Amino acid sequence: MHTDGIEVTTGPLGQGISNAVGLALAERHLAAQFNREGFPVVNNTTYCIAGDGCLQEGVASEACSLAGHLELGNLVVLYDSNGIQIDGSTKLGFTEDVLERYRAYGWHTLSVEDGDDDLAGLERAIAEAKAVTDRPSIIKVTTTIGFGAAKAGTASVHGAPLGEEDVAAVKAKFGFNPEEKFVVPAEVAELYRKRAAEGARRQEEWDALVERYKAAHPDLYAEFKRRCLEGVLPDDWASALPTFTPEDKPVATRKLSEIVLTALAEKIPEIMSGSADLTGSNLTRWKGAVDFQAPSSGLGDYTGRYLRFGAREHGMAAIANGIACYGGIVPLVSTFLNFISYAAGATRLTALSELRVIYIMTHDSIGLGEDGPTHQPIETLAMLRATPNYLVFRPADGNETAGAYYAALRQTRRPAVLSLTRQNIPHLAGSSIEAVLKGGYILQDSKAPTGKPDLILIGTGSETSICVDTAKHLSEKYNLHARVVSMPCTNLFDEQTVEYRREVLPDGVPVISVEALSTFGWHKYAHHPIGINTFGASGPYSKLYEKFGLTPEAISKKAVAIAEHYKTTPVPSLHHEF
Amino acid sequence: MHTDGIEVTTGPLGQGISNAVGLALAERHLAAQFNREGFPVVNNTTYCIAGDGCLQEGVASEACSLAGHLELGNLVVLYDSNGIQIDGSTKLGFTEDVLERYRAYGWHTLSVEDGDDDLAGLERAIAEAKAVTDRPSIIKVTTTIGFGAAKAGTASVHGAPLGEEDVAAVKAKFGFNPEEKFVVPAEVAELYRKRAAEGARRQEEWDALVERYKAAHPDLYAEFKRRCLEGVLPDDWASALPTFTPEDKPVATRKLSEIVLTALAEKIPEIMSGSADLTGSNLTRWKGAVDFQAPSSGLGDYTGRYLRFGAREHGMAAIANGIACYGGIVPLVSTFLNFISYAAGATRLTALSELRVIYIMTHDSIGLGEDGPTHQPIETLAMLRATPNYLVFRPADGNETAGAYYAALRQTRRPAVLSLTRQNIPHLAGSSIEAVLKGGYILQDSKAPTGKPDLILIGTGSETSICVDTAKHLSEKYNLHARVVSMPCTNLFDEQTVEYRREVLPDGVPVISVEALSTFGWHKYAHHPIGINTFGASGPYSKLYEKFGLTPEAISKKAVAIAEHYKTTPVPSLHHEF
Ligand SMILES: [Ca+2]
Ligand SMILES: [Ca+2]
Repeated sequence: MHTDGIEVTTGPLGQGISNAVGLALAERHLAAQFNREGFPVVNNTTYCIAGDGCLQEGVASEACSLAGHLELGNLVVLYDSNGIQIDGSTKLGFTEDVLERYRAYGWHTLSVEDGDDDLAGLERAIAEAKAVTDRPSIIKVTTTIGFGAAKAGTASVHGAPLGEEDVAAVKAKFGFNPEEKFVVPAEVAELYRKRAAEGARRQEEWDALVERYKAAHPDLYAEFKRRCLEGVLPDDWASALPTFTPEDKPVATRKLSEIVLTALAEKIPEIMSGSADLTGSNLTRWKGAVDFQAPSSGLGDYTGRYLRFGAREHGMAAIANGIACYGGIVPLVSTFLNFISYAAGATRLTALSELRVIYIMTHDSIGLGEDGPTHQPIETLAMLRATPNYLVFRPADGNETAGAYYAALRQTRRPAVLSLTRQNIPHLAGSSIEAVLKGGYILQDSKAPTGKPDLILIGTGSETSICVDTAKHLSEKYNLHARVVSMPCTNLFDEQTVEYRREVLPDGVPVISVEALSTFGWHKYAHHPIGINTFGASGPYSKLYEKFGLTPEAISKKAVAIAEHYKTTPVPSLHHEF
Repeated sequence: MHTDGIEVTTGPLGQGISNAVGLALAERHLAAQFNREGFPVVNNTTYCIAGDGCLQEGVASEACSLAGHLELGNLVVLYDSNGIQIDGSTKLGFTEDVLERYRAYGWHTLSVEDGDDDLAGLERAIAEAKAVTDRPSIIKVTTTIGFGAAKAGTASVHGAPLGEEDVAAVKAKFGFNPEEKFVVPAEVAELYRKRAAEGARRQEEWDALVERYKAAHPDLYAEFKRRCLEGVLPDDWASALPTFTPEDKPVATRKLSEIVLTALAEKIPEIMSGSADLTGSNLTRWKGAVDFQAPSSGLGDYTGRYLRFGAREHGMAAIANGIACYGGIVPLVSTFLNFISYAAGATRLTALSELRVIYIMTHDSIGLGEDGPTHQPIETLAMLRATPNYLVFRPADGNETAGAYYAALRQTRRPAVLSLTRQNIPHLAGSSIEAVLKGGYILQDSKAPTGKPDLILIGTGSETSICVDTAKHLSEKYNLHARVVSMPCTNLFDEQTVEYRREVLPDGVPVISVEALSTFGWHKYAHHPIGINTFGASGPYSKLYEKFGLTPEAISKKAVAIAEHYKTTPVPSLHHEF
């Protein structure tokens, strides 16, 4: 982030409190992993200050319900209840009993009636909250917005400055000289100096604790240092990545993801994974994984690395942001690709906060079949590819799936989305882990006597093998020479040199792209993007591919027409660098 | 929708219950508007069946908190509590006390302990719920998933068929012949025949009531018929649309939207509008509007046409979907454009369900200034434009804002998004209401001696006037002839004939697009899209426009280079129809 000490971007309402749940969750996990008798090396309380708007947001409801379930006793929320939100009184739309709701979530609830003046009461409440360690705590602090100002207690203090006169009045009221500006009174400076000294002393104590920990538990310390202090992956982690050959049997990329994740989870202990109630579909739980659960549940414990988010996609993403910014953990979270739209408020902030969260998004097109258009993404990849700082991968087979994990995990300040199929697809000749790092590459080439291909087919994910079949069909039936370009990550392709991009997509050759989602955005790479610009349909996936014209035969027909067209018309360049 | 009797698409979790809140809200409003002593022409209960997953979703929390606040006593939710969700037992992640939470929202709560067998208890609970009319009711019905099957009580009954054997066992258990398939027993058919007859009788009663209502309240009846039975706007509604001239003073399109909305709200009584706690920023509340509130609140009543959603964007959109599908109301709802991402789970379904919901989205770029990158949309228009069935408008001035309302309201089965500025922008010569219907049009032309422009500048929204200034600059400083195309709606432009599109963007002329968001998608229309492919920044908006190169001077520099480049290189065609 831009400012030291600020690790996550919480401007939009409801994100901060959900991040706080992630921070508290990460603390519980790392404490369970690393602390030993007499060595509480991970041991902090997460405090969060939230307002009325924050607590109206669904994302906060999701995260807090889960926090209660997980018994995160290291979390203290101070709810600044001032009865005002932007529209005016909270009576306009927020008359629920907030503390009763939090009790329903399993939280410990407290109140400070006079939050304007009763600082002793506030301190007592915080102490009481910290003393309760088997549940998160929320303290409702009743306050006056703009306390002391003429406009105190009104919404107009929220969005606009008080004005010269009112600022002077407030200063006078609290015993300051209204003439002075940007002044820190000596006793305040002194207080903060003392706090800094206290902080330094605590840091020294902790450093000494860690030194003793190093002597007593050298192996654990080495891991702690690597994961939590340095934030680097184990040296040889990439050696665990499996590779595949065209002889391996066809398999869904979600299943390939499970294979890769299972291999990596053993090698990279900081991987935690989880799903929003679609574990058996997302295939994100490796064999033998332990659930992250409160020990009292009997269903797992805090050392567990698998997260059961329930049907809470937005909360999941916001919690993952909190986990990632705590450090020492690489969160991988999942749902169906289409339902990343439920979480978009938080997934955007993953990118803005530059966090390494990996979104494992399965069932990534009409290829999911029977669930139909409510579950079939169309606009989703356009949204993600247009979001700055994301890497959006749609791997075409096993090697590309391994490559997507490889490319994603090498990053430390970029999130990634892996868009994966429900349906089985074959392993392709020409794919490799390394090729994915280029974003797009020549998978299979075919040159006409001119030395150039007659046309280029770009595929992503499940459509890449369809492009391979189309090239074969074009060659056999029409004697056309089609190059197949696999484009698992347009973001990385965009970052290659212009020379490389011109090598893959040379001028003078017509280009067709094939992706079973919206063609929006593909005109940058193709003269004729083939895709789906309506909502999908329900049926067996092979029928749907026929219905939407995504078969080698249907694509070949278009390809022939396009090749024919450009026999008499110059092929427009797609490279417009100036 | 595809199936008669199904009006809204609720596949994704949490949408159905939120739609139900919208349906109940619409009923309360229309009842308040149209019912008279002895004439309850609008008078129905909304029933909703929801499961564990539905109640975990934040969208449902938002909608239900608001339903409690609004005292929607005509809503009955049956919560099918079977202790199972897709991942397995709800104990894995959903251990909150749901009914306590709903009591905190102000709901009436009931339980049926044996939902498998106790049908009398279920009927009693429903009757009790209906008798409570000052609060919505939720009935927790404890059931066994797959009741009667061998796999009863497990998650495996959810996603997969039972199998031949188990189906036969279930049939036998409940007294059916396991050999028979697709059989409706005579007593069931008879029961449904009776229900149909009962329904027909009730319809007759209601028809008779409406006939009497027609006689007693002819004017009200005429409105009721137009709005609720026929679903057409008043004949002359469009005459209320204001027009503007370049002499009118510069003003933000959000403010222009307020002017248009104020005029239309008087003419079109079925318009209800609302905001997710940004009323003073979205400018969606016309002068004299009454809030839709429970009469007991003292803040409005059910005849009120202004909705205070609180900070609940996802709930707002899902409720708007319910309102729109009830009929008789055209909902306009609003937040900052960037925060449509919070609501994307529901806004997608607006399009899939073919509902006329109009999203008034203000603060639509870095032009919002100081709130910074957390509030500045970048990828948002790409997402919306890629979503099937949407009309996404980004009007450039007053006439185009009126035109956007005009185009949006003419639709009955398409939603619209109006993307509006926070900052003031001038009214442009050449704009008109009608031109918006084409999506894109020649706003101002300039021809070189060749008879063609030297280049074309496409602008949307606030960047259109920047294009106009750029054209002037190019003419004065570089003697270049630039056409300015205003493109308030790419979706509508795409639907024009190829001849028209070639007229606006002729072959042989280089095209530059300018939009202060991601350039993703613009390669379809422009050789060189100018925009912002990083996150934004915080500062006064004019400084930000400089920083991101969106000034006439900066654009002119690029334009000159591009015009120069194409003096020696053929201009690639952008029209790739085959
Ligand atoms: Ca407040
Ligand atoms: Ca259930």
